[in-house]
Amino acid sequence: MKRIYLDYASLTPVDNRVKKAINKYYTEEYTNPSALYYSAINSKNAIDNAKRNIADILHIHSDEMIFTSGGTESNQLVLNSFLGKKILISSIEHSSIINNQIDNKNILQIPIDKDGIVDLDQLKKMLNPEIDLISIMMVNNEIGTIQPIREISKMIRDAGAKFNKRIIFHTDASQAPLHQVLHLEKLNIDLMTLDSNKIYGPRGIGMLYIKRNTLNINRPGTLNIPGIIGFSLALEIAEKMKEKETKRIFELKNYFFNELIKINSNIKMNGTIENTVPNILNISIPNIDNEFFVLKLDAKGIECSTKSACLRDEDESYVLKAINVDSKNTIRFSFGRKTSKGDLKRVLKVIKEIL
Amino acid sequence: MKRIYLDYASLTPVDNRVKKAINKYYTEEYTNPSALYYSAINSKNAIDNAKRNIADILHIHSDEMIFTSGGTESNQLVLNSFLGKKILISSIEHSSIINNQIDNKNILQIPIDKDGIVDLDQLKKMLNPEIDLISIMMVNNEIGTIQPIREISKMIRDAGAKFNKRIIFHTDASQAPLHQVLHLEKLNIDLMTLDSNKIYGPRGIGMLYIKRNTLNINRPGTLNIPGIIGFSLALEIAEKMKEKETKRIFELKNYFFNELIKINSNIKMNGTIENTVPNILNISIPNIDNEFFVLKLDAKGIECSTKSACLRDEDESYVLKAINVDSKNTIRFSFGRKTSKGDLKRVLKVIKEIL
Repeated sequence: MKRIYLDYASLTPVDNRVKKAINKYYTEEYTNPSALYYSAINSKNAIDNAKRNIADILHIHSDEMIFTSGGTESNQLVLNSFLGKKILISSIEHSSIINNQIDNKNILQIPIDKDGIVDLDQLKKMLNPEIDLISIMMVNNEIGTIQPIREISKMIRDAGAKFNKRIIFHTDASQAPLHQVLHLEKLNIDLMTLDSNKIYGPRGIGMLYIKRNTLNINRPGTLNIPGIIGFSLALEIAEKMKEKETKRIFELKNYFFNELIKINSNIKMNGTIENTVPNILNISIPNIDNEFFVLKLDAKGIECSTKSACLRDEDESYVLKAINVDSKNTIRFSFGRKTSKGDLKRVLKVIKEIL
Repeated sequence: MKRIYLDYASLTPVDNRVKKAINKYYTEEYTNPSALYYSAINSKNAIDNAKRNIADILHIHSDEMIFTSGGTESNQLVLNSFLGKKILISSIEHSSIINNQIDNKNILQIPIDKDGIVDLDQLKKMLNPEIDLISIMMVNNEIGTIQPIREISKMIRDAGAKFNKRIIFHTDASQAPLHQVLHLEKLNIDLMTLDSNKIYGPRGIGMLYIKRNTLNINRPGTLNIPGIIGFSLALEIAEKMKEKETKRIFELKNYFFNELIKINSNIKMNGTIENTVPNILNISIPNIDNEFFVLKLDAKGIECSTKSACLRDEDESYVLKAINVDSKNTIRFSFGRKTSKGDLKRVLKVIKEIL
């Protein structure tokens, strides 16, 4: 039985082209770019090329990024740079932002509305001259909601102008590159987290975009050359496939959800079709136990999830709680490059049998 | 012209067997071990097997390790767990320990003798009931000196007993696994750093050994499955090859140094043949400019270094300074699995021409 993987938001496989490209840097071009000799220049050039490639895609400068071990480390580096400062975050940030080490009195949560979107009126009220950092994720990993980043950044810039201070705006965009436009010149963000795990790139590598004159973060340690090169290529491939894949997956999601409500008209989408990314579909199915449901699907070769894999087994989803949804009957399906309509037909058939 | 790489202490290539083993986890067995479905169990089992394998090799329990992005992060996690506490470190620790964020008044450096060994009399004097952590690297990355870890740990345990408190002992053993015995039950260490980059393992992965009941360090983020599996295999291969490779490389080092002093009898070894690892040879050549010398060797296809690649270009080597050696005329040759006697003969010929 062919397994159907519908948990791409948890981890994407590594693209075969990326795998091929990085293998060379394991066994052949492995020299440390900090060394003095000639082959080190090759390593340095390979990294510089990767940076330029990333910079072109994101519309930034190639000196505006550092590489980390993933989205979690990128987020931690940001928060650790604002110890003792006043911070606003949305109430549905990734666990690496929500479960941080910062004193609670310095970090306030901006509420979200019933569709999972940051309440802009509340944000406006919470902005004050004491705030130094605002961190709002671009795409939520559990329900897939897309935050109005441009409106938020404009609101933050206006507040900064009024208070005559610079308020730093960070967004965790780990779930964004596959289907969102990441044109940073236009988005007017100061700091942005990316994670290779979510874009068919190698494991153990992430990025933090740092706009010039924003923060001086030094990240010591040997550069992960294959990781950086693989991440750059994965981002490039994602960019090239974006338009077509976004259309394809949007259609799959629509088809799948429309068929689902034919099976049971009480199935509800968490977030709306307009404000969520096409690759994440979070639904509530009345009267199910979602863990049991996931295991039943698994028995039929279908892999999906109940919540973020970054939460511990015993933790309830605070994201679903924030939108007033019972987290015991929600299922997250996330689609990817290998998801076909045929796969979804089989999934629908199995769900019909289970319900 | 075949290039001769003699900078293995900076970075080792990835072992071909390791590369093959991890590729599967990129494109096939990639699922998140935290997920609920069946294939996640495969991922979890693969990680559990890797942990058991590492535990067997190091003579520890498999719950006594966490995985990091490398030696630098492992070291930082240790230091960050002792903020505000009194710490002793040797004066030749890796840059990730020396250049830390900790208030200088809380961290004191233990001097080393002229051969690069921690001065045990000084250490004894510096031990007092206020000390919480001692961090002394097992093998120095620039001169290759091996510290007397067992004597040091005994001294620390005795002091702890006398003061009626637990003093934690950490060692950065990143340079140790290829040629040192890492039997942790016997070594009596509390915390130990390892780095995959130095043992022919994949990039961007490291480990921190944490003895039970020592520290509670939680390292969030998605587990780097191929990294963990590759690191485990690399450590296993290193263990299997250790006896033979250590003998082979020890003979190469002896041969090479003896031939060097025939070329110029004023060439000095930094550290002694007895107290350094076989794969690192650090020498002083009178009246040379070492950067120029490295470039001359490079022009003949030979790659070696003047100092740790982790130091910035403008930084002088504090390690060589600590043993009172002029850091402008030292060269580090580090040998590895592909180093042959034929290679070294060619290197000797070139050095003879240059001098």
